[in-house]
Amino acid sequence: MNFGVIGYGYWGPNIVRNLTSLEDSQVIAIAEMSPSARKRAQKAYPGIHVTSDAFEVLSSTKIDAVAVVTPVWTHYELAKAALENGKHVFVEKPFTSNTEQAEELINLAQRKNLKIMVDHTFLFTGAVKKISQLLDEGTLGKLYYYDATRVNLGLFQHDINVLWDLAPHDLSIMDYLIKTSPEAIVATGQKHLNGHEDVAYMTLYFPEKVIAHINVNWLSPVKVRTTLMGGEKRMLVWNDLEADEKVKVYDKGVDITNREGVYELLVNYRSGDMWAPQLEQIEALRQELSYFVDCISSNRDPSNDGCAGLRVVKILEAATESLGKRGALVYL
Amino acid sequence: MNFGVIGYGYWGPNIVRNLTSLEDSQVIAIAEMSPSARKRAQKAYPGIHVTSDAFEVLSSTKIDAVAVVTPVWTHYELAKAALENGKHVFVEKPFTSNTEQAEELINLAQRKNLKIMVDHTFLFTGAVKKISQLLDEGTLGKLYYYDATRVNLGLFQHDINVLWDLAPHDLSIMDYLIKTSPEAIVATGQKHLNGHEDVAYMTLYFPEKVIAHINVNWLSPVKVRTTLMGGEKRMLVWNDLEADEKVKVYDKGVDITNREGVYELLVNYRSGDMWAPQLEQIEALRQELSYFVDCISSNRDPSNDGCAGLRVVKILEAATESLGKRGALVYL
Amino acid sequence: MNFGVIGYGYWGPNIVRNLTSLEDSQVIAIAEMSPSARKRAQKAYPGIHVTSDAFEVLSSTKIDAVAVVTPVWTHYELAKAALENGKHVFVEKPFTSNTEQAEELINLAQRKNLKIMVDHTFLFTGAVKKISQLLDEGTLGKLYYYDATRVNLGLFQHDINVLWDLAPHDLSIMDYLIKTSPEAIVATGQKHLNGHEDVAYMTLYFPEKVIAHINVNWLSPVKVRTTLMGGEKRMLVWNDLEADEKVKVYDKGVDITNREGVYELLVNYRSGDMWAPQLEQIEALRQELSYFVDCISSNRDPSNDGCAGLRVVKILEAATESLGKRGALVYL
Amino acid sequence: MNFGVIGYGYWGPNIVRNLTSLEDSQVIAIAEMSPSARKRAQKAYPGIHVTSDAFEVLSSTKIDAVAVVTPVWTHYELAKAALENGKHVFVEKPFTSNTEQAEELINLAQRKNLKIMVDHTFLFTGAVKKISQLLDEGTLGKLYYYDATRVNLGLFQHDINVLWDLAPHDLSIMDYLIKTSPEAIVATGQKHLNGHEDVAYMTLYFPEKVIAHINVNWLSPVKVRTTLMGGEKRMLVWNDLEADEKVKVYDKGVDITNREGVYELLVNYRSGDMWAPQLEQIEALRQELSYFVDCISSNRDPSNDGCAGLRVVKILEAATESLGKRGALVYL
Repeated sequence: MNFGVIGYGYWGPNIVRNLTSLEDSQVIAIAEMSPSARKRAQKAYPGIHVTSDAFEVLSSTKIDAVAVVTPVWTHYELAKAALENGKHVFVEKPFTSNTEQAEELINLAQRKNLKIMVDHTFLFTGAVKKISQLLDEGTLGKLYYYDATRVNLGLFQHDINVLWDLAPHDLSIMDYLIKTSPEAIVATGQKHLNGHEDVAYMTLYFPEKVIAHINVNWLSPVKVRTTLMGGEKRMLVWNDLEADEKVKVYDKGVDITNREGVYELLVNYRSGDMWAPQLEQIEALRQELSYFVDCISSNRDPSNDGCAGLRVVKILEAATESLGKRGALVYL
Repeated sequence: MNFGVIGYGYWGPNIVRNLTSLEDSQVIAIAEMSPSARKRAQKAYPGIHVTSDAFEVLSSTKIDAVAVVTPVWTHYELAKAALENGKHVFVEKPFTSNTEQAEELINLAQRKNLKIMVDHTFLFTGAVKKISQLLDEGTLGKLYYYDATRVNLGLFQHDINVLWDLAPHDLSIMDYLIKTSPEAIVATGQKHLNGHEDVAYMTLYFPEKVIAHINVNWLSPVKVRTTLMGGEKRMLVWNDLEADEKVKVYDKGVDITNREGVYELLVNYRSGDMWAPQLEQIEALRQELSYFVDCISSNRDPSNDGCAGLRVVKILEAATESLGKRGALVYL
Repeated sequence: MNFGVIGYGYWGPNIVRNLTSLEDSQVIAIAEMSPSARKRAQKAYPGIHVTSDAFEVLSSTKIDAVAVVTPVWTHYELAKAALENGKHVFVEKPFTSNTEQAEELINLAQRKNLKIMVDHTFLFTGAVKKISQLLDEGTLGKLYYYDATRVNLGLFQHDINVLWDLAPHDLSIMDYLIKTSPEAIVATGQKHLNGHEDVAYMTLYFPEKVIAHINVNWLSPVKVRTTLMGGEKRMLVWNDLEADEKVKVYDKGVDITNREGVYELLVNYRSGDMWAPQLEQIEALRQELSYFVDCISSNRDPSNDGCAGLRVVKILEAATESLGKRGALVYL
Repeated sequence: MNFGVIGYGYWGPNIVRNLTSLEDSQVIAIAEMSPSARKRAQKAYPGIHVTSDAFEVLSSTKIDAVAVVTPVWTHYELAKAALENGKHVFVEKPFTSNTEQAEELINLAQRKNLKIMVDHTFLFTGAVKKISQLLDEGTLGKLYYYDATRVNLGLFQHDINVLWDLAPHDLSIMDYLIKTSPEAIVATGQKHLNGHEDVAYMTLYFPEKVIAHINVNWLSPVKVRTTLMGGEKRMLVWNDLEADEKVKVYDKGVDITNREGVYELLVNYRSGDMWAPQLEQIEALRQELSYFVDCISSNRDPSNDGCAGLRVVKILEAATESLGKRGALVYL
């Protein structure tokens, strides 16, 4: 399978490296606007055609699929052109700048029988796979809450705020793990420096009393990548910065027995062993791209398809509305 | 100074122990409803009068000041009776169940020239004192945000939710450190077990783009007591669970220079040394009670007086309203 | 059972508090040389006779057992007097200053049918009990090594070096867990300040290729209390400073298959889940003293009897000899 | 400057990548015995000549310097051939299998006016540079001890034991930081699996009461890379596994005043701030190779020259002797 890659900035080189190393795929063209990035690409991959003209890649008859690794505001146009030229599309997250664009791309791909995959890389990590398995097996029991913190002194973006920059990671993971969709959302935050929120908080109300919360921050002195999940039977902490033992499952919880009235509630705390399951160690992006190649070959829709991308964009759109109204409840 | 203590449950024994060990104070009576707690009190302090009748303590002519260490819904009545009987009052946080009660107690104390101290113990810890000093000296520069997490598998309360249980710690600290009052508040959360929210989140909007956030949770498998503060010049992490190095100051930050337009913003990251100042090691509650005795003796108003207690209750009241409306913005 | 306690310095108050709280024992006399410590004892326990004269305690006909909580160089004489006066003896670790003293006390107790317990408190912690159980059940498989680090900015002792001060903890734990005795010992170290080694290292050679190592240091800026144990089947880390999860069991190891020669060794690494068993939370000293009372009542020999104390002293004596010869191998 | 690289196993690719990226150097030939490694090299660097014949590289007239990145038992022969062919030599640590070989290579290089650099990479890390600077500035005061732990479930070596595998890191760092040479050494350890010690401990006696200790272990379930250094004025912890704050300086210590006799020693503990200096972030190996190119160009002897390599080998040789005699003191 022949790939063209548009964008060779921060993430593009990882896409190229993995596509090149896979057995069933190769990169034959890279488009990139920055001359210095083009130079780096050419030096590292003398055999690949490197150009400043994205259209060359989008229209090449030798190319089967295009990876769009550019800022979010360019996704729609590039992906659309690729699809119109009969190419499958692998596109960075967030999928598009709004839901209309996402829906249009999904429809276009469907009509053309082409595949879209949105780069929700985290779904392919050993940690998320293991958590998904634990949830499926009922290890946690009924879920109570999902609470994610993703903060550090991050790269300031000029075209999007911290929610659009960092929350897509958590939203795509949450979408994958919780399976149902949130009913309503509250987002708060503050702009301090360049006109975009650099600190933001989201609460998502799900059916059946499940609540999710996401804390993202570009101005934190320390890096935190921690998610807590509490369930009726067990609880879980995922600390993505731990070298080993990223996921810890706690045999802890609360049982409440209502005897005769509110003042007779019997609260029983449970506290048992902790257990850190071994996680798969394969590079997530490699697995994801290999899965994309498989989906195309076997004409299957990936789980992280355009619809998954759309679900994340829908939440971001609602969050933006809520943020603008300082936390107003927005129904989805 | 002769003290009466009402309530000898979880926290009361600490109050008695400290008042007993101070040079200028002694406890002469303890009132407690639970027979087993009375037995413990009597065994530990054979010289103190232990009774089941709070009125005995409130009306005793030998008593100068009363410590009210009971559930929040009893504070108003007990404190009122104590003040009416001419006694100074040390009362657990949160001060009262609503702002009206708080205001009435403040007025009553003023008329009687009596002191109220609300037990905002954290203000007397080495950590909060040091952070306060760093802020006063301008070490952090203009404050951007204050983000506190206080979660664990906590004692379920039957009469209040997790906000009223855990957030008063952070609200009293925030009130002490930030000095200005929040303008508006957004609170979200969920009830899973006994009719009270066990997971809750608050965002507080302060003047001049300062934003605060508080994450409280009774259903966390791990205990977290971490506060991040970001400022223009430096940033700070306070991890109260660290044995040493509870407060770390980071010489990190972001400088943004606007050259010619939004696409020309120059973002400069700064990253320098980290510094963990040595903290005072004296027991906070002992210092607080000693300060209370001093304030009474010298007829000074404590910084954690009824008005400080009222400010915290006002925020809790607004948060409760917001929580009931799933995150509606409530102005203060 | 009536106890006399000799020594009310750092550890004595814990002994008195626990003996007092147990159902079947009480303290009726405390001997202590320091006037200020006597004052503290009298204030805390108005009902106990407090004296400066140890002989009063040792000879009192009302006393059944004596706890010797004094510096090591006084243990022999005080314990001997207690035994001669027909009293059971609970004595601080290390048991005595040398093996002759230990043997004499053991013989004396045996002749008089009295019990000796050496205060190897750690054997009664949830962590050591759990590790012992794991070893007994074969969870680790054949043991390869035991490696303990016990360092901090510790109290300088004037009469003993850091080995005699800190290593008895590890030696008593090791004696309890490994069960066989070391064959030979190598100790190294250095004196920097007051004529006693403040940094020291011991290697202990056990039968069947088991090796143990102990690192003790009074001059460390950070406190470390970590023990690694490696076995054929699994490995274990005990970090006594963790609030939760003190003991972690790793399903990790190395399998070596020798195919045809040394250059054909096949090394297979195993790496599986990690597991932190829940530990008992009861205060170790309380359990130990309750066990002592039981042993006396039922005329049983405690596991941490004089012989256990002697085994530790024997190693310390050999280590001292090795240390003096800068690491010479000393056989036991 | 044209380089030939011999060995393209675990470390060789890093050497090639860095030499290739430097401005003043290029790799023109790689020799490697494993066909699969040769294939990887050829794919990654289509422009470099890849051969199975080391002699081709050693004798090529186009090559100025050779990097020997092979097992230690081959260093002597390969380095000797390189020097005899007039090439500068960059050689992996440990330098050689024994001191005679090291001395012969040093003499040969001197006669031919060629440079030898031993790959003591750690000397070029931000952490070691900063510690060196702190020592030079007297921040720690007179050094008391150096205590390094380097353990994990490591790659078993078939030709050397864990001391020769892991300790060269610490010995080269120690040699660089302490500056004086140890007078005597004690080493202990145990073989459990394949005939080589997999657990080992070294104590090094330096002049003026400085003591060093190294703990290396191939059978640890957890990775530890921690060095403690205690000085008269301050103490330091270097934890190389921390993402940030690898080096922490503690304003802690002990002052001892001798008043009238050993029982009148006044011990004063100091405890002040902790400080984590910012460290340089550049890749150490890149800096080291750039320094090697500079040394050759300017005809300077590198600090990590053959003599530094020899000092490390001398200690390893003494340690091997001590290990064989179960900890016998070996003078250097």
